[in-house]
Amino acid sequence: MEKVGIIGAGLVGSLQALFLAKRGFKVSVFEKRPDQRKTEFLAGRSINLALSDRGWKALDHVGIGDDIRKVAIPMYRRTMHDENGKLSYQDYGKEGQAIYSVSRGGLNQKLMNLAEPLENIDYFFNLSCQNIDLKKNEVTFKDKLNGNLEKHQFDRIFGTDGAFSKVRLRLMKTDRFNYEQSFLEHGYKELTIPPLADGSHQLDKNTLHIWPRGGFMLIALPNLDGTFTCTLFLPFEGKDSFENLNTPKDVNSFFEQHFPDTLDLIPQLQEEFFENPTSSLVTIRCKPYHYQDKILMMGDACHAIVPFYGQGMNSGFEDCTVMDEIFDECGNDWKKAFKLFSERRKKDADAISDLALYNFIEMRDLVGDDDFLLRKKIESRFYEKHPDQWMPLYSMVTFSHTPYSEALAIGNKQRKIMNQVMSIDNINDIWDSEIVEKQILDSLSLS
Amino acid sequence: MEKVGIIGAGLVGSLQALFLAKRGFKVSVFEKRPDQRKTEFLAGRSINLALSDRGWKALDHVGIGDDIRKVAIPMYRRTMHDENGKLSYQDYGKEGQAIYSVSRGGLNQKLMNLAEPLENIDYFFNLSCQNIDLKKNEVTFKDKLNGNLEKHQFDRIFGTDGAFSKVRLRLMKTDRFNYEQSFLEHGYKELTIPPLADGSHQLDKNTLHIWPRGGFMLIALPNLDGTFTCTLFLPFEGKDSFENLNTPKDVNSFFEQHFPDTLDLIPQLQEEFFENPTSSLVTIRCKPYHYQDKILMMGDACHAIVPFYGQGMNSGFEDCTVMDEIFDECGNDWKKAFKLFSERRKKDADAISDLALYNFIEMRDLVGDDDFLLRKKIESRFYEKHPDQWMPLYSMVTFSHTPYSEALAIGNKQRKIMNQVMSIDNINDIWDSEIVEKQILDSLSLS
Repeated sequence: MEKVGIIGAGLVGSLQALFLAKRGFKVSVFEKRPDQRKTEFLAGRSINLALSDRGWKALDHVGIGDDIRKVAIPMYRRTMHDENGKLSYQDYGKEGQAIYSVSRGGLNQKLMNLAEPLENIDYFFNLSCQNIDLKKNEVTFKDKLNGNLEKHQFDRIFGTDGAFSKVRLRLMKTDRFNYEQSFLEHGYKELTIPPLADGSHQLDKNTLHIWPRGGFMLIALPNLDGTFTCTLFLPFEGKDSFENLNTPKDVNSFFEQHFPDTLDLIPQLQEEFFENPTSSLVTIRCKPYHYQDKILMMGDACHAIVPFYGQGMNSGFEDCTVMDEIFDECGNDWKKAFKLFSERRKKDADAISDLALYNFIEMRDLVGDDDFLLRKKIESRFYEKHPDQWMPLYSMVTFSHTPYSEALAIGNKQRKIMNQVMSIDNINDIWDSEIVEKQILDSLSLS
Repeated sequence: MEKVGIIGAGLVGSLQALFLAKRGFKVSVFEKRPDQRKTEFLAGRSINLALSDRGWKALDHVGIGDDIRKVAIPMYRRTMHDENGKLSYQDYGKEGQAIYSVSRGGLNQKLMNLAEPLENIDYFFNLSCQNIDLKKNEVTFKDKLNGNLEKHQFDRIFGTDGAFSKVRLRLMKTDRFNYEQSFLEHGYKELTIPPLADGSHQLDKNTLHIWPRGGFMLIALPNLDGTFTCTLFLPFEGKDSFENLNTPKDVNSFFEQHFPDTLDLIPQLQEEFFENPTSSLVTIRCKPYHYQDKILMMGDACHAIVPFYGQGMNSGFEDCTVMDEIFDECGNDWKKAFKLFSERRKKDADAISDLALYNFIEMRDLVGDDDFLLRKKIESRFYEKHPDQWMPLYSMVTFSHTPYSEALAIGNKQRKIMNQVMSIDNINDIWDSEIVEKQILDSLSLS
């Protein structure tokens, strides 16, 4: 039986263990951190995530979807908060469609609890990958409790050890490995909106809240315990920046000026701001994702993206679904399978990576823009009438399984069509007319 | 006195040692390889390089220019060899302007011989950088002869340890360090054209020979001993590729088909092809080039480029000149100096990096193209008449000290003007007319 080692027991590693176990492989999962089910351990990562269709598909495949649905909070729309506390709304999709706020830790632990009892999955904690001997396909781990080194040899290795992957660090030293790490000028900091006295949420919980402010923004996602986790995205340097918020007073006046309606909502603002870390945001691109028929990387290890499309976890989970389909195609030809995954997934990861970077501009700037909102209205009206001819880009990414690269290409075509539509003189008055509908239909038939 | 450590005794490291010693610093240079003056050691690097004005300026500054001129071979033009062995020519610059073929090893050794006797420069060989403690600015070296580790602390560290820099590898782990390594689909292999019986060159030695073949090419640069070093640039994979040249017979018929006039010139073709390594071609980009006021990278360590503009060494040497000018501006404010170098040099390195990638297309494809050659003719005629208004891009890069980024911007403007000129109906007939001259003058006055 093929002996498979998975490096990294995070979301993608634990899910991939389940996919591989279903196919009968003998799987060992290695995690450098302690067992998070036994210790409080958050490691500065974001504590909730938005789950959408690509993620659900993979979870349903391993039979855990319904369990997670019980503890996921649907968010049907964006709620924008302007400087005066005035609200406006934008639905994510059609009636009933939502993205779901889930706890990173809760989801990870559920996956582990499902995986560990299986006969052909073993978990090992506190073992950090130090090196990989590519000839023998042998990993040297360091036991973080006693400092001892131990070696494990595998037929195949899956590298699911995140944005700062040790597996990738090893592959970077092989010839002709293309690699890029690119950081945003913005960092982020998490803050908390506690529940009301009765335990309920202080804001509408079935929505993702955004305070768009052009160069920066605040967002809030609901948690099951009545809290919201807020995230402030702000440049590290410059006028409005983390480097200029050095005292509780600075922070208070910054929030007073830009987010006045949050001052009552975040009572521990000044304490949390200085206790919680300021984290950076990285995009990782590399090529290839595999090494011969021996090693394959998945998730953030090969394609970490910025969080603004809510697709980081979803694209990692889709890696598992795609790999599973490739196993069906390739049988036990690992060389072909790994190469195919690398080629197919690389172009989709590049696409969602670009989309995620673009969506930051949309979220922090455009969601408050009249022109932008009118575009969205025209698009969704047309989508309603001609669902077979037009699915908005956001819906393709979030509520479909269209490969990201195809979604991006279609989205680019749609943008050109919408640019023409928006240049109609009295578009504000006639946006919901047959003239506009016909122009879009004509453009589509030409493209 | 400031204690400066230089990691890497290659061309840039040895030159920078001389620049720093001139300013009175106490300099220690560490090299992982043995002293190349005592051992034959080429490490698979290209054995000759094209030196041009930016390089000469730096060499003249440390007083070694005239010494090198004696052993440098001027190349005044490109000589293109077509499939039938027919030759055509293209001057690099104006009368008397040339790029110079120099031996990498010879130049490196001359720099070392100049540096080592100085009281405030010490060289250490066989010591490879293992790690840097950024707090203490302390480097751990491994002695490659006995395996011992030793630590050295410095006020400042210069990382001049090449494209696979250990200094950069350490800085990559600091937060928000942007990095990219990107490999060409092409590799290269060196071959030799030996001298005639009387020791003279088999081809015109005062020219750079090119056999442009579209997807691939062969070039040859002269050496002092009567040989030429040929370099074959060829894709790793695909129809015409290294992976398809597996036997002496394959190689022979490939050269017979594409480079028939070289078969007699390279008598050891089949042996050399399988004895010499196939090397890859990498572009390295990163940001920033410095760490606080402690560490600065220069040369390939922070901006390795592909060799097709002949500017790899020249840009590294220009780093030394630019750093020296910055010392004049900043005095002993190292923090300001390192930051300024990083900002100023990054945009120029990005520019030459793009230009070098583009020039590969020009060399392997366009130099045989009539349209391209006519453009060059029109440009150089106009340059002759109006040297104050137009310097061709190649000349700005090669024979001037205009910052690369400015040269690139001017070159882009010039290309647009030339596109218009080339679209004149009977341009082939009237290229050397007042009409064309006037159109260029008009376009320039508008831009």
